[in-house]
Amino acid sequence: MAKPAYVAVDWGTSSFRLWLTGHDGAVLAERRSDEGMTVAATAGFASILARHCQAVSAPAGLPVIVCGMAGARQGWVEAGYLDVPAALGAIPSAAVRVPDPLADIRILPGLAQRHPARPDVMRGEETQLLGALAERPEGHRLVCMPGTHSKWVHVAGDSVTRFSTFMTGELFEAVANHTILRHSIAEAGAVDGDSTAFRQAVADIIRDPALASNLLFGARSGALLHGLSPADAKAHISGTLIGLEVAGALEAAEPGTPVTLVAAGSLGSLYESAFEIAGIEPVVIDADAAVRAGLAVAARALWAI
Amino acid sequence: MAKPAYVAVDWGTSSFRLWLTGHDGAVLAERRSDEGMTVAATAGFASILARHCQAVSAPAGLPVIVCGMAGARQGWVEAGYLDVPAALGAIPSAAVRVPDPLADIRILPGLAQRHPARPDVMRGEETQLLGALAERPEGHRLVCMPGTHSKWVHVAGDSVTRFSTFMTGELFEAVANHTILRHSIAEAGAVDGDSTAFRQAVADIIRDPALASNLLFGARSGALLHGLSPADAKAHISGTLIGLEVAGALEAAEPGTPVTLVAAGSLGSLYESAFEIAGIEPVVIDADAAVRAGLAVAARALWAI
Repeated sequence: MAKPAYVAVDWGTSSFRLWLTGHDGAVLAERRSDEGMTVAATAGFASILARHCQAVSAPAGLPVIVCGMAGARQGWVEAGYLDVPAALGAIPSAAVRVPDPLADIRILPGLAQRHPARPDVMRGEETQLLGALAERPEGHRLVCMPGTHSKWVHVAGDSVTRFSTFMTGELFEAVANHTILRHSIAEAGAVDGDSTAFRQAVADIIRDPALASNLLFGARSGALLHGLSPADAKAHISGTLIGLEVAGALEAAEPGTPVTLVAAGSLGSLYESAFEIAGIEPVVIDADAAVRAGLAVAARALWAI
Repeated sequence: MAKPAYVAVDWGTSSFRLWLTGHDGAVLAERRSDEGMTVAATAGFASILARHCQAVSAPAGLPVIVCGMAGARQGWVEAGYLDVPAALGAIPSAAVRVPDPLADIRILPGLAQRHPARPDVMRGEETQLLGALAERPEGHRLVCMPGTHSKWVHVAGDSVTRFSTFMTGELFEAVANHTILRHSIAEAGAVDGDSTAFRQAVADIIRDPALASNLLFGARSGALLHGLSPADAKAHISGTLIGLEVAGALEAAEPGTPVTLVAAGSLGSLYESAFEIAGIEPVVIDADAAVRAGLAVAARALWAI
């Protein structure tokens, strides 16, 4: 095995991911668990990190670079925010050091937009951005990072100029589990972005976003009156919420701005389908690779690795 | 006490209301409980009704007129739907009789819109409409009935031509209780429709409805960055969702169509405030009075009371 150079950690609200990383950025070992910030706030951040480091046989004292909610006020050590407009290159040096007698552990800051009428925050996505844009820092683009709280980021060269959060993933969970629509989608599996139900819902909401809370109810009335299947009802809800996000984000951008999609797995496929309906051809970057690349950029900047 | 003529019941998903009513429509006694359809489906509709009838000393065998979810498939006896376009006057004769050896108990039907792309249903609101419009059945108007599932109904004379459900109330509950925004509104009391936070949120979403899932997140980012209070965060969420509904419903109507608001209590005040911001001056009708009036119209039609 190549010699480990540092430990990279993406510590989200509900997930923990760790990569033992070599000098060349190669992943030597990986750990994933659901010990996100919420769990760690009770169980202890230091002990969770130590256990996973031990599980991959990380040498004692290896430096650790962390991004995500571990740096939130309710997290391990508060890592604050860089205010936008912000150069992505300024992120590593704004990392906060965790008091630890054995290892150099740093948590990267988030980004804050303090505009009075459009306040917004991100924590974790700035590191994905750092990785996604490290090799192509030219021009103006709009970067979409879908998820529980999707981020749409306006980037000019190496700088974040502004960004918007759309709480699409969390709205989907709340609607699918805590409204009457849950009866219409019971037992349905993963949403198929190529299904007619998904594509039609995206098209309908893009044409008329003000009807969002009416179109959502179509999952129930369609089931009652037209025998809409649970799979199609679920695709309808997903398409409505993702399409609403895409409509809102594109409306706030200059027409023709190139779009980069930083996503992974099945969620990425849903957004690619929605983009196609919206007439957008994005550059697609894998979100997992992007966060590892961003942590690598930070590690190299901090420790000359 | 005047002589009771019939028992009127509004039996919703989560609430039960009963009025012992005289020949002239006067309320002789009233009962309210949370034994809605969900509870009654387990506890038994007949026994709940009998107990409340007994509590108001209703004479045995008095006829009972019921509207609402008691007529749903999961309810007491399924009362089906009248398809729109539908004359409100056709509702009473479409009532379904509950098999009961002692009393004449009838449940009023709902309304269904079987349009392939815009299926929709209502159950209970058709009786409010019947009451609200009984004395002024002329012209074309748009009737807003806010609630868990708000209904916007296009009425021409005595006929319902089409309608749309906006699941505003249920979305508010899901967002306020089952997303990260719950932390920002903890312990906040009732929303004030005259507050700047509510009015600004209504204005913002009407101007740009596609940003709904972004503007909602402002309750959190505003709390994090600008110290937005729990009361203002809650008003912001409420204003965003009510404003979205108003924007969507008005967009789908002919400009200048007169609007009638059938609402009660604090919810009615929030909609009146949102209407003012949207430049609408509605005729306001009390929802409680409207449902009693609708049940009275039905009772008179069925029993020549």
